[in-house]
Amino acid sequence: MGKLLIVGSVAFDAIETPFGKTDKILGGAAPFISLAASQFNVESAIVSVVGEDFPQEYLDLFSEKNIDINAIEIVKGEKTFFWKGKYHNDLNSRDTLETQLNVLANFKPVVPENYKNADVVMLGNLNPSVQLSVIAQMETKPKLIVLDTMNFWMDNTLDELMDVIEKVDVITINDEEARQLSGEYSLVKAAEKIHAMGPKYVVIKKGEHGALLFHNGNVFFAPALPLEEVFDPTGAGDTFAGGFTGYLAKTDDYSFENMKRAVIHGSNLASFCVEKFGTRRLKELGPDEVYKRLQQFKALTQFDIEIS
Amino acid sequence: MGKLLIVGSVAFDAIETPFGKTDKILGGAAPFISLAASQFNVESAIVSVVGEDFPQEYLDLFSEKNIDINAIEIVKGEKTFFWKGKYHNDLNSRDTLETQLNVLANFKPVVPENYKNADVVMLGNLNPSVQLSVIAQMETKPKLIVLDTMNFWMDNTLDELMDVIEKVDVITINDEEARQLSGEYSLVKAAEKIHAMGPKYVVIKKGEHGALLFHNGNVFFAPALPLEEVFDPTGAGDTFAGGFTGYLAKTDDYSFENMKRAVIHGSNLASFCVEKFGTRRLKELGPDEVYKRLQQFKALTQFDIEIS
Repeated sequence: MGKLLIVGSVAFDAIETPFGKTDKILGGAAPFISLAASQFNVESAIVSVVGEDFPQEYLDLFSEKNIDINAIEIVKGEKTFFWKGKYHNDLNSRDTLETQLNVLANFKPVVPENYKNADVVMLGNLNPSVQLSVIAQMETKPKLIVLDTMNFWMDNTLDELMDVIEKVDVITINDEEARQLSGEYSLVKAAEKIHAMGPKYVVIKKGEHGALLFHNGNVFFAPALPLEEVFDPTGAGDTFAGGFTGYLAKTDDYSFENMKRAVIHGSNLASFCVEKFGTRRLKELGPDEVYKRLQQFKALTQFDIEIS
Repeated sequence: MGKLLIVGSVAFDAIETPFGKTDKILGGAAPFISLAASQFNVESAIVSVVGEDFPQEYLDLFSEKNIDINAIEIVKGEKTFFWKGKYHNDLNSRDTLETQLNVLANFKPVVPENYKNADVVMLGNLNPSVQLSVIAQMETKPKLIVLDTMNFWMDNTLDELMDVIEKVDVITINDEEARQLSGEYSLVKAAEKIHAMGPKYVVIKKGEHGALLFHNGNVFFAPALPLEEVFDPTGAGDTFAGGFTGYLAKTDDYSFENMKRAVIHGSNLASFCVEKFGTRRLKELGPDEVYKRLQQFKALTQFDIEIS
């Protein structure tokens, strides 16, 4: 079993969807990633920062799931990163109503000694300079570095972002971001260009339309499970990344064949995430449900045309 | 092997995409459906109508592929149905620039005697009253009736459309049309409501995002093959329907398991259709290419997570 280092924001989210709204609840990339990865009972730690206002019960939640929180810095007298957003009716787009960077503005990540030899490093969506700093602190070369990012960094810190992209094995971005980064409309061509920027594996997330994994001219596709209702899409991409890296770390097998399985596990966990606000569904999620839905995934996609 | 009756428009299309434009070329639902179905060497006939201006070479093309054209009525002194459209840059939407119904305005379909016992009836997108007339002419109950339709008929002839929907086994519509017909945004819920209108099987086409097959609470998904370039999406849905019904008629097996295979075959053939203008790619398509791409489909979607 491999060791998983997770770097990402830990935040308060206030979310409005067509189905309801929440006050400040647990959000940010790292909680979704780590809770998803915890389904695989993998050894993991979060590197992040919160303010003095961050509730102990949230920290306890991570500990209960065996997620190491020693590297979540708590900054006295300051406040936790806060994001407020409202989804449109189709849930495919959203408006950011408020962003308070707070402690995240001066975040200097410190990788704990016992994770400087992590097998898998999951770089959640953050300032590329923070992501670079984490890579630089690793003492042994990780078997796999996975990068998540977004258009904000392409618009504002493209040079630093390109530096990170060059150093990672896998990049996960959504379809529109892949088009922006590559200048190609076709996702096949976009993946080729991004591949040439460094990552051996390119994962393009299409939200409700699933995810594509590209590698060396090969492509694998995992649909999103068709759901009766999507309640809140927040964190689905991070949950996918957590399932993906959690499964890879657990199996310690970084082959393309195993990465296909990791994509399915990531999609499977993401299908739960969207059923309730924030991390609520992931928190309560047990292995039986996960297993059962994996069977649905198999029924959804597997066929038996003989082509020998 | 079953016998396949195809009812649908035979037309001239003039198409403009971001990659080029054509003058009048062969178009309409029936050519795409029948050419796709001909890949399975199935016994098939087209019921349709054209004008005196319709070129003999197009009719010869059908005959060469063993598609029975005796029930394509040629109306002297009149002109063939004409559609002119322009695709937007993302190819996901288009504007209709011109529609000349011509002979299609008074189309009275006549099912040939030797097809009144067809095993599979494929009702291409047409006025629902024409589709109803075809069903009424069948002397033996077909093993499978498949309906394709579109929002135009929902807007203008909903009552007649509901009469057809009640009488068919399978309906194929796109995602927006499924939402319009059912009043449900969730495709899972939309499929349930449409199921209750009559069809035991509901196929929801999502264009570049693949197709969903719903049946009795079960769902199967086939992605569209990720392509370097989509040149012209015209006819992709009809090609899917032709591959779907052609495979089912050939195998004469109408189980859900076999329908999954039919969905894959339909998606596979549709991936060729969009590579050139109109029917050009289908016309030249040979079994080796089809077989090779079927292997790509398998690589794209099949994984081996053990969940016994």
